[in-house]
Amino acid sequence: MSKNMIIGQSGGPTAVINASLAGAIEYAFGSEKIGKVYGMVHGIQGLLEDNVKDLSEHFENRPSRLNRLRMTPAMFLGSCRYKLSNSDEEFEKIIAALEKYNIGYFFYIGGNDSMDTVDKISKYVAENKIDIKVVGIPKTIDNDLMGIDHSPGFASAAKYIALAVRNVTYDTAIYSVKSVHIIEAMGRDAGWLAASSVLARDSKNVAPHLIYLPEVPFSVDKFISDVRDKLEDYNSVIVVVSEGIRDDKGNYISARGDKIDKFGHVMLSGTGTYLKEVIEEKIGCKVRALEPSVLQRSAGHTASLTDITEAQNLGMVAVKAAIEGESGVFSTLRRTSNKPYSIEYYTENVSVAANAEKTVPLEWITESGNDVTQDMVEYLRPLVKGVPQIPYRDGLPDYVNVSYLDTKKQKYNNNDDSDK
Amino acid sequence: MSKNMIIGQSGGPTAVINASLAGAIEYAFGSEKIGKVYGMVHGIQGLLEDNVKDLSEHFENRPSRLNRLRMTPAMFLGSCRYKLSNSDEEFEKIIAALEKYNIGYFFYIGGNDSMDTVDKISKYVAENKIDIKVVGIPKTIDNDLMGIDHSPGFASAAKYIALAVRNVTYDTAIYSVKSVHIIEAMGRDAGWLAASSVLARDSKNVAPHLIYLPEVPFSVDKFISDVRDKLEDYNSVIVVVSEGIRDDKGNYISARGDKIDKFGHVMLSGTGTYLKEVIEEKIGCKVRALEPSVLQRSAGHTASLTDITEAQNLGMVAVKAAIEGESGVFSTLRRTSNKPYSIEYYTENVSVAANAEKTVPLEWITESGNDVTQDMVEYLRPLVKGVPQIPYRDGLPDYVNVSYLDTKKQKYNNNDDSDK
Repeated sequence: MSKNMIIGQSGGPTAVINASLAGAIEYAFGSEKIGKVYGMVHGIQGLLEDNVKDLSEHFENRPSRLNRLRMTPAMFLGSCRYKLSNSDEEFEKIIAALEKYNIGYFFYIGGNDSMDTVDKISKYVAENKIDIKVVGIPKTIDNDLMGIDHSPGFASAAKYIALAVRNVTYDTAIYSVKSVHIIEAMGRDAGWLAASSVLARDSKNVAPHLIYLPEVPFSVDKFISDVRDKLEDYNSVIVVVSEGIRDDKGNYISARGDKIDKFGHVMLSGTGTYLKEVIEEKIGCKVRALEPSVLQRSAGHTASLTDITEAQNLGMVAVKAAIEGESGVFSTLRRTSNKPYSIEYYTENVSVAANAEKTVPLEWITESGNDVTQDMVEYLRPLVKGVPQIPYRDGLPDYVNVSYLDTKKQKYNNNDDSDK
Repeated sequence: MSKNMIIGQSGGPTAVINASLAGAIEYAFGSEKIGKVYGMVHGIQGLLEDNVKDLSEHFENRPSRLNRLRMTPAMFLGSCRYKLSNSDEEFEKIIAALEKYNIGYFFYIGGNDSMDTVDKISKYVAENKIDIKVVGIPKTIDNDLMGIDHSPGFASAAKYIALAVRNVTYDTAIYSVKSVHIIEAMGRDAGWLAASSVLARDSKNVAPHLIYLPEVPFSVDKFISDVRDKLEDYNSVIVVVSEGIRDDKGNYISARGDKIDKFGHVMLSGTGTYLKEVIEEKIGCKVRALEPSVLQRSAGHTASLTDITEAQNLGMVAVKAAIEGESGVFSTLRRTSNKPYSIEYYTENVSVAANAEKTVPLEWITESGNDVTQDMVEYLRPLVKGVPQIPYRDGLPDYVNVSYLDTKKQKYNNNDDSDK
């Protein structure tokens, strides 16, 4: 008799987590080994609260809806930030919840914390000889997961940053006055997203002129001197910084911009805003700080097609592996060639990705500490390629309905009338 | 003997000013009445400094480059913020510069200040019986131009705001905690862009929940009460504000967030940032303020196809009018039907648009002052429709080369190797 599967999403959103969900659902629909497909609403926390959604009912025989799911940013099933307590009692609750739905296959899409959850549950079921296959599916915009060439979600955020820098380059090129634009990219400990801004360069554009990553200690004096140098050669200077840059003592630069509000409270500004103020004071030219914030991770309409395809395939690979009997692994990919870009999918022990962090290799940062090397460009370039055919309706992307997630609503809207 | 034409761009950038430029160039290339096509680099100021570019040489017989120009945001010819002094001496200099290039047709793409320039030059040449036709081509993201149904550039910025709100809605829907997101749209005196966020609503989404425009006095107490009400019904509340909202005494709300930096200087924060701090203090839930800033006007890759097409046609209509002998006018459009969306192009006396400002009609704002009406939705909806086929290269939009505008560069790069 076939067993059912359940899948959940956890951690922060990306543009392509739902592509992994769609890939996993699609593969399961095509397999005789899997019965019904369930979703944990708000991840493992939802499972513990019996907040479970019937995905077979919602998506089966609805290829157009499944396609829209693939193109919908963030998480159809909602997220949680739930750390397992490691108590037998909690594991028993999880197993009881899974048995209630006759689950034989458990999938969790997330970053390194989520892979830790997969690791722990898979070990518990193995030790207790419970027949449930537990498999992870990777995601994170930060690209800091170990055991994978690049994380799904990263490429679309990287493309967003490169697009923003290119557009700002054109926006500011029109004036013949000195100016500096600072774009702050996400990345607390790893500088991958700030580094991706290098893709805005081509034969016609040299911006960004300066790129600063958290992997190299940041000196405000050196920064001012770098900006001054660039202003010698260009009217309009574009700088990209990781939010997580810090000084040689390890203190975040963002924590320096201490202001006092009208109530006398000390306030922390963003990294870009602080550096804007420093340039205004020390150089005195026009400066603008731009912080795309969550827009860089939620921009479904400009996702990379390569990213969407890979995320979807990683969802499929995970389900295939579980059906074939694997557990305690996550689906991953390695690059076999840069030109032409070529990857292969496989599975890896999930402990490789759990609670570890991959930062930018120092040899991909220039000696000056304010730029990245050609090796970085070659690593990044293939990832952002491809423009997906997003379904549009009334001029905007026609995503799937996620309004059911807002439990506050007395009567939520579960209507999704866009299926053709 | 045919006369030459010259064209310039002025004011702030939009995603489609170059579409108007491309339309004007293309029409001129097809007309026997016009000889060469020149561009003023940095507008009227460039003309006075003899900074003139030969556009015939750059674009003739290069349809692919002209197509890329159409899709390139901001201004290929650069901008200026130059106010005519109205002295005979200055007018004589302008005429001398135009005669040097045997100009019979003068075009200026811009907002109400630029239309004032067109007005003055056209009157001067008429009074002095100089045979130059002077015609304006409209643009502004703010949609505050008089004498036109909607301004080219507005629709693409409106689409950007609607896209941002829709994406943020999905990004924040994944958490089941109370939160408020405030998105600050451009618009100092007119609330058109903030109002456009209403397009993010569809049968699946109710966000944005609150919209505030500068046309209605803003009360911080009322605002807090509005947000509290919405938090009763929704976990995640999305608010859109115009940067230019002000209180009943006419003071900008943005000027309220007075902070003191570490040097003791008073600093002005943005409107969204100030309101974020107020919510944190009075309500105490999670709040994020997002300020897309120049990204909303420079996003060429998500421009509205309707906007690109209309901007291009307005460039053509202006050149056609000049060839047919009109002067002191600007090309414009009126809406003849909403469903189906239908417009017609014509010309209007440029003094109609010069130095006047069109704000949002009060009857399109709800009585509560925190939303817009269905009439506004019907006005906006057709404008954002259509996805252009942007030429991509290496994963990013392949815009034309504008790096020649940076006069600082000792040897600028004028290479544009993307033509097929």
